[in-house]
Amino acid sequence: MADLNRSGIITLTTDFGLDDAYVGMVKGVILNIFPRARLVDITHSITPQHIQQAGFLLFTAHRYFPDATVHMAVVDPGVGTSRRPIVVQANRQFLVGPDNGLFTDFLNDQARVYHLNRPQFFLEKVSHTFHARDIFAPVSAHLAKGVDPAELGALITDPVRIERPAPVANESRIVGTIIYVDRFGNLITNIRADQVSEDSIVRIMGKEIRGIALSYGDHPKGSLLAIIGSSGLLEIALACDSAALRLKAGIGQAVEVRKQKN
Amino acid sequence: MADLNRSGIITLTTDFGLDDAYVGMVKGVILNIFPRARLVDITHSITPQHIQQAGFLLFTAHRYFPDATVHMAVVDPGVGTSRRPIVVQANRQFLVGPDNGLFTDFLNDQARVYHLNRPQFFLEKVSHTFHARDIFAPVSAHLAKGVDPAELGALITDPVRIERPAPVANESRIVGTIIYVDRFGNLITNIRADQVSEDSIVRIMGKEIRGIALSYGDHPKGSLLAIIGSSGLLEIALACDSAALRLKAGIGQAVEVRKQKN
Amino acid sequence: MADLNRSGIITLTTDFGLDDAYVGMVKGVILNIFPRARLVDITHSITPQHIQQAGFLLFTAHRYFPDATVHMAVVDPGVGTSRRPIVVQANRQFLVGPDNGLFTDFLNDQARVYHLNRPQFFLEKVSHTFHARDIFAPVSAHLAKGVDPAELGALITDPVRIERPAPVANESRIVGTIIYVDRFGNLITNIRADQVSEDSIVRIMGKEIRGIALSYGDHPKGSLLAIIGSSGLLEIALACDSAALRLKAGIGQAVEVRKQKN
Repeated sequence: MADLNRSGIITLTTDFGLDDAYVGMVKGVILNIFPRARLVDITHSITPQHIQQAGFLLFTAHRYFPDATVHMAVVDPGVGTSRRPIVVQANRQFLVGPDNGLFTDFLNDQARVYHLNRPQFFLEKVSHTFHARDIFAPVSAHLAKGVDPAELGALITDPVRIERPAPVANESRIVGTIIYVDRFGNLITNIRADQVSEDSIVRIMGKEIRGIALSYGDHPKGSLLAIIGSSGLLEIALACDSAALRLKAGIGQAVEVRKQKN
Repeated sequence: MADLNRSGIITLTTDFGLDDAYVGMVKGVILNIFPRARLVDITHSITPQHIQQAGFLLFTAHRYFPDATVHMAVVDPGVGTSRRPIVVQANRQFLVGPDNGLFTDFLNDQARVYHLNRPQFFLEKVSHTFHARDIFAPVSAHLAKGVDPAELGALITDPVRIERPAPVANESRIVGTIIYVDRFGNLITNIRADQVSEDSIVRIMGKEIRGIALSYGDHPKGSLLAIIGSSGLLEIALACDSAALRLKAGIGQAVEVRKQKN
Repeated sequence: MADLNRSGIITLTTDFGLDDAYVGMVKGVILNIFPRARLVDITHSITPQHIQQAGFLLFTAHRYFPDATVHMAVVDPGVGTSRRPIVVQANRQFLVGPDNGLFTDFLNDQARVYHLNRPQFFLEKVSHTFHARDIFAPVSAHLAKGVDPAELGALITDPVRIERPAPVANESRIVGTIIYVDRFGNLITNIRADQVSEDSIVRIMGKEIRGIALSYGDHPKGSLLAIIGSSGLLEIALACDSAALRLKAGIGQAVEVRKQKN
């Protein structure tokens, strides 16, 4: 992949918010090194220091970007400690950020991981508190410009991984959990489309939903429905309203799927 | 207009918020098809499913963009149902989104509307829940690249329109309503600049405002004023403060304008 | 500097928020005049009409941008009054906005300030309420395109300055104040890195912090620490948590620094 044509796109995923100037500084650093960079914000609203949330959103989004896009993702409670800065090369894309498990979903057999240990690719003065600006932004700019990732650091084989709960299945049922709640209050589970069928029965918080819906809009306002969402995962939604608020359910909540009784 | 030089600009107006990765995915899809697209966010903070609010903001903003800009606007409670995806060609610009009344203000006599029914311009796999990503983003990219709108779908003559309240006028007075409240708490009415005069008397929530102000800053802090806002409509404002909070007024509130008594 | 190569970058710092279409309109105006402009948002979340906050964030951010970047900053309670629109040329960059003290930090001996009084560089119709769109956006676009600032207005020598509190130092201690609170709840003071030493003792709200930390992550969760932040100023932080919430401290709060007792 080092020889892929770079798209020139750099996406940003952080927990910096949009109220301070942190995101602006990062973009300034990138444009200083690579003026033709095309910057795309995935989100800067990750719950502060919530590594898994960033990983989930980035993994969901990355497949819609061109090959060789550079995704910089920084949720970094260990900034300034010995945690390593890394670049991951996987799925024909580049991931840049701290080695704290954020890129766990990308660490397949083909993935290559480099420890960013060449200060010539950093800002001249590296602070202890803002590596996004001082390390990850300049490295992302160099990558997007065409530098080979192997030039940026040493290959490593022990990147940090985060354990995530997988759904537990037996013959009659699958038990999964809510892993994300979106702005509309849709409850996104870790149960995949291929693990349910049209006539499945879904249970959450004592409520039973019969069958998997085809769209939000086909249902009367306020009715609870189970649907395969845009990320290919089972979601619990409320037509024209928030399932999270109605059910008072959030991340970690159990969801059970059974075959229809006859 | 099909032969106008495209500006390459695509604006986005949605109710997706900035916390999830939905906007990022839409941008990835666009850049995959048309890498030179210039993406501009109008807003992603439309109140969920509030079609009229999106229509108002987009109509206010569109006139400041170059000819042949593509405006993608998606507030889409009917996604996945039989509601049509459309492109509207009006005011020398393109509008892309669901046929649910969002583009009502653009539907003048010269407007042409096409039903987007050619899947070769969509993503290969179209979900039931996220047409912004699967239909509207790719279509917007193709339009911005230079594809003729007539290639994208079949001309239709019955696009959905939303009825909006118009001010009611007689010889002595006009009664309008608040149609939008902005971040500063300014109350924007549906009464146009040409319907008031310098010495009009404005009444709202039992308060009387004499005369139309020329600027916010000419008035003492905390004083209520009536002013022609940046969109050419009568606004009720509070100097250096929020009229909405002070008056506890919002969308739908009646506003009366009378000629000055002698 | 008038002959510097323009970077084509225009940054935006405002109190407009992202919920309305104001930022979108400003960008439309810029792209209409200078289609190749590269737009970067610093922030649009300045507390409404909080001029000093905008000045602080812009000054902190501007050094990371290429030479000849145009920074448009609009927090403008005096819009429509006699306050002057200006461009400041300083630190090899351009600043565009109202003459209300926003650019105080940039007004060094080498700075040149021009009163924007040439309507041929404005929109044809200038409103009384939205100079960001009607004056500052078009002027910024012309500057980024390469127009000499001296062509845009008349040199002036009396730009408005805002007095800011400076730390008070004597032999044994320095007393400064919190000047900014960021999204993470870090309390940023006006005390510079060179005014403290590794073994300083910091006092705030009756709490005593011994020594200046090297990173957030080296400390146990929930411990209070003093650290030199990314802007080169002393900050009070709480490891993995919000110092602002814990201490119930905000802008204006006094902070004392003493040498370690022996």
